[in-house]
Amino acid sequence: MSDLPRRDFLATAAAFVAATTAALVGTRETRAGDPSFMNNVPDPLVSGKDLPTFKFALEKSEGKVIAKSYGKEATVVQLPISKGIAGVSMKLEPGAMRELHWHATAAEWAFVLEGRVRTTVIEPRGLAETNDFEPGDVWYFPRGHGHMLECLGNEPCHFILIFDNGYFSEFGTFSISDWIGHTPRPLLAKNFGLPESAFEGFPKDEVYFARGNVPPEKHTTPLQGWKLPPLTHKYQLLAQPPHHVFKGGREWRVDSAAFPISRTVTGVVLDLEPGGLRELHWHPTADEWQYVIDGNVSVTMFGSHGRYRTETMEKGDVGYIPQGYGHSIENVGNKPSRVLIGFNTGVYETIDLSQWIAGNPADVLATNFSKPAALFEKFPHQDVFIADKDGK
Amino acid sequence: MSDLPRRDFLATAAAFVAATTAALVGTRETRAGDPSFMNNVPDPLVSGKDLPTFKFALEKSEGKVIAKSYGKEATVVQLPISKGIAGVSMKLEPGAMRELHWHATAAEWAFVLEGRVRTTVIEPRGLAETNDFEPGDVWYFPRGHGHMLECLGNEPCHFILIFDNGYFSEFGTFSISDWIGHTPRPLLAKNFGLPESAFEGFPKDEVYFARGNVPPEKHTTPLQGWKLPPLTHKYQLLAQPPHHVFKGGREWRVDSAAFPISRTVTGVVLDLEPGGLRELHWHPTADEWQYVIDGNVSVTMFGSHGRYRTETMEKGDVGYIPQGYGHSIENVGNKPSRVLIGFNTGVYETIDLSQWIAGNPADVLATNFSKPAALFEKFPHQDVFIADKDGK
Amino acid sequence: MSDLPRRDFLATAAAFVAATTAALVGTRETRAGDPSFMNNVPDPLVSGKDLPTFKFALEKSEGKVIAKSYGKEATVVQLPISKGIAGVSMKLEPGAMRELHWHATAAEWAFVLEGRVRTTVIEPRGLAETNDFEPGDVWYFPRGHGHMLECLGNEPCHFILIFDNGYFSEFGTFSISDWIGHTPRPLLAKNFGLPESAFEGFPKDEVYFARGNVPPEKHTTPLQGWKLPPLTHKYQLLAQPPHHVFKGGREWRVDSAAFPISRTVTGVVLDLEPGGLRELHWHPTADEWQYVIDGNVSVTMFGSHGRYRTETMEKGDVGYIPQGYGHSIENVGNKPSRVLIGFNTGVYETIDLSQWIAGNPADVLATNFSKPAALFEKFPHQDVFIADKDGK
Repeated sequence: MSDLPRRDFLATAAAFVAATTAALVGTRETRAGDPSFMNNVPDPLVSGKDLPTFKFALEKSEGKVIAKSYGKEATVVQLPISKGIAGVSMKLEPGAMRELHWHATAAEWAFVLEGRVRTTVIEPRGLAETNDFEPGDVWYFPRGHGHMLECLGNEPCHFILIFDNGYFSEFGTFSISDWIGHTPRPLLAKNFGLPESAFEGFPKDEVYFARGNVPPEKHTTPLQGWKLPPLTHKYQLLAQPPHHVFKGGREWRVDSAAFPISRTVTGVVLDLEPGGLRELHWHPTADEWQYVIDGNVSVTMFGSHGRYRTETMEKGDVGYIPQGYGHSIENVGNKPSRVLIGFNTGVYETIDLSQWIAGNPADVLATNFSKPAALFEKFPHQDVFIADKDGK
Repeated sequence: MSDLPRRDFLATAAAFVAATTAALVGTRETRAGDPSFMNNVPDPLVSGKDLPTFKFALEKSEGKVIAKSYGKEATVVQLPISKGIAGVSMKLEPGAMRELHWHATAAEWAFVLEGRVRTTVIEPRGLAETNDFEPGDVWYFPRGHGHMLECLGNEPCHFILIFDNGYFSEFGTFSISDWIGHTPRPLLAKNFGLPESAFEGFPKDEVYFARGNVPPEKHTTPLQGWKLPPLTHKYQLLAQPPHHVFKGGREWRVDSAAFPISRTVTGVVLDLEPGGLRELHWHPTADEWQYVIDGNVSVTMFGSHGRYRTETMEKGDVGYIPQGYGHSIENVGNKPSRVLIGFNTGVYETIDLSQWIAGNPADVLATNFSKPAALFEKFPHQDVFIADKDGK
Repeated sequence: MSDLPRRDFLATAAAFVAATTAALVGTRETRAGDPSFMNNVPDPLVSGKDLPTFKFALEKSEGKVIAKSYGKEATVVQLPISKGIAGVSMKLEPGAMRELHWHATAAEWAFVLEGRVRTTVIEPRGLAETNDFEPGDVWYFPRGHGHMLECLGNEPCHFILIFDNGYFSEFGTFSISDWIGHTPRPLLAKNFGLPESAFEGFPKDEVYFARGNVPPEKHTTPLQGWKLPPLTHKYQLLAQPPHHVFKGGREWRVDSAAFPISRTVTGVVLDLEPGGLRELHWHPTADEWQYVIDGNVSVTMFGSHGRYRTETMEKGDVGYIPQGYGHSIENVGNKPSRVLIGFNTGVYETIDLSQWIAGNPADVLATNFSKPAALFEKFPHQDVFIADKDGK
């Protein structure tokens, strides 16, 4: 790993370039997966008189189960409004592995809830990385990069995967056993310079969840040795101090400025105290995907033309807010709540209602609402972001 | 406003980066809203035997009228060919305001025709700007940024809005009164740390055009004080010298090099003397939206396969030319004409027929047209751009 | 051509910027024509139980024939799977010219097979270039830039055109004779400052293939003199040493790092000895278009879910692999084969199966395939890329 100093230099340089560009340009970088652009043509589903549901009970769904491992997915099939982002809840038992595979049509961002996970990932130019993850850690694999996920240790692991494409689905995922199993042996033999017999007993169909020994505690060296890519695929989100701390809650956030490889996804962990409220706001450049890790929350969504809808969500439920739609998240239970949120952009942006109002003079607000200007002097003079149960 | 020198520095730096990139790369920057890319899949409307109409009498349409204020729109509903760009003609009476709102699916570019306008706009990170506009001035609000428009002084104001999405429409516009009117009062109270009674008497439905006192002549300070964004939203287009001056007319133009925030729209004001002709040309990377401010013009459009169509347009009419289609604009009236033109690109590009021909040797042209090479020596040896009534 | 040193500087600077960006960002630049992004919404054609054909016998198709010149095309009409890339085989007889035209919806990349070709091309800002091409040379014309192609010398020429849009088609190509032929003469006269009589005898309809004298051996000066663009449109691909040389074959490759103007296309010439194999691999960010220049090859395609298809292709056949789909190319004839390959990206990326496996530790592979770890120590410890007939 002698090239680590070079990696650090490159990561720093990349972050500097991203930050400088964002500051100069004033809005977001627009690269692969710009959702605001895909949203040019209106989705008929959200163009009717009423808003459709934006909630799906992911953990109550059946999913794909092999022994004690499972994968449950929320795509446009399960939650039709979620065209920009899909998600998967995956649990692996000890010794289990989500085998080597790649996604032709989506990048993968993940957050570990329980247990420990090891990943390997291959990039173009043969650069590869192996990483170990604990609860609160995050990974990102660009679209099309091959990877595997395996459970570490003797306890199962559980993580949430977020994909920057709501159409992510069966036909976008390619598994190595499926490929090798359907390739004629003479071709495999020539490809690898091995006798055909070397492939005897290989799986004939997709393995999906492979099972074997519990992996060695310290990861071993890849066949080719270490050839690390310039940007790491791992970020320890909850090991950082929160991005925002309020009486009513706190937020951790990671976008491409802190985690440069994650060009198309920003992730957030939002903790709310009982009664706490992530205030009314919208994201001008991204769709939002929510997964309730703990607690009971009420999510409101405003869709213009008097269209307003509220969903009550509990642990294991998924929510979705299209780009530009107004919304809020409130802890309506009697214990702290935690929500994992993913955005399909590498540059996070929010506009909060309190801050929009604070950015206007009182006379403008007076005219807008036909109320006396003095009333608006009582409104917050800065961003609220998270209010506590008493609106403080 | 003590950070103005920093703003100037940043604006200069952004312009430098844009110009350098454009020079090096040789073609346009491609960011959010690259129309040439959206145009990959052919539009059935322009794939038939004949070209559809590309004209709509915007000012003769009804629009939305409240008292003496109105908004008339040209979207794919009114003008089906205009998939890349929509437009609105808006008039506000004194004391009237287009209330605080945002567009989830389009950026807004505007040109003031009459009267004076004040705007406020909020960006992510809470940066906000208030600006006053006079005839000939331009504003640009990125997709999803909240803003309001109000008439200044005792005369009505009239302006043209251009949106970088022809599907811009009802369900893409979100008004603050609509949102607040449909949000439960307990939630509002918590959000703003105010008693529920503070929201008594707020509008229950969308206000759209609010009415109140004529605004103070000098704009007042926002609640949060001044927190200016790095790039201004205002550009005084007609206060500049024209970009091009010919005997037959002149052109003002503003793209992202001069007005860096306007990354997805370029605007042009084209004046033609009677008989003046903006010559046959096409735009390789943008759709074109036209609004006749004054006079009578004839617009030709060439769509390949012998498809050729001419529309005669008068004051208040709108025209549309898809990316890459050949076209020309000629003043066929007996007084000067003025046309406002918007392109859905921040980097303007044109290829003029005279210049294309001048870029070829005579022997190539001779073979192409089966005419003697000597004939082509008489053709212009440089760009014509605007011809006068006598072809000079 | 006194500005050649400045051109060299600009080309070097552009290549440096492209290379630095690619290195820092770790994946591809995403500009106009990012196919991975367009592929978000699944194509129903490749979402069924079986994979559709991905082969079309281009040279056996009829095409457009005028005298001894022809153009045969492979678009979504002829090969429905090829949504991201179209291709044309064009032959021009001596004295023939594909007349001045532009493509509204695609950039053009070309490779010369036989004979010599001259091109002229116009850019925005009036910059123009004339170039002469020999077998093995490549050109690139950005979307919408006007150009012509003519046969040089007394032998016919034959070349393959690749377009970064599978919907490239009839209605996307605009010819100058078609435009001028349908424009009223008074408008032409005014446009060019010439008497109407100057246009007498001009073609009334599209000429497509014009015919005239064999062009002068040394190209003549354009009417406007030389105004060279900063980036050249010509690259001599086969005049370079191959990018990769193996016992089983070799590869020449050109992307935007070496040929900066070619921002949306990468081209490859792949030579395989009899039995040679371009190993199992996929491209995470691009579709692939293939044209068999010589020999007989077998192409396999893996589409997930047990979907696997093989096509045998001979000289003049075209193949297509969607972005992210696994595939291989094997010379199954008894003489060397040559395949021309185009990708719709300016930054080439591949992930080879041997390299992916080599990027993993043996214990991971053992679990994945339920085989002993020792077996995988025998697998290649580095990229195979091209295997020879004996798998070496």
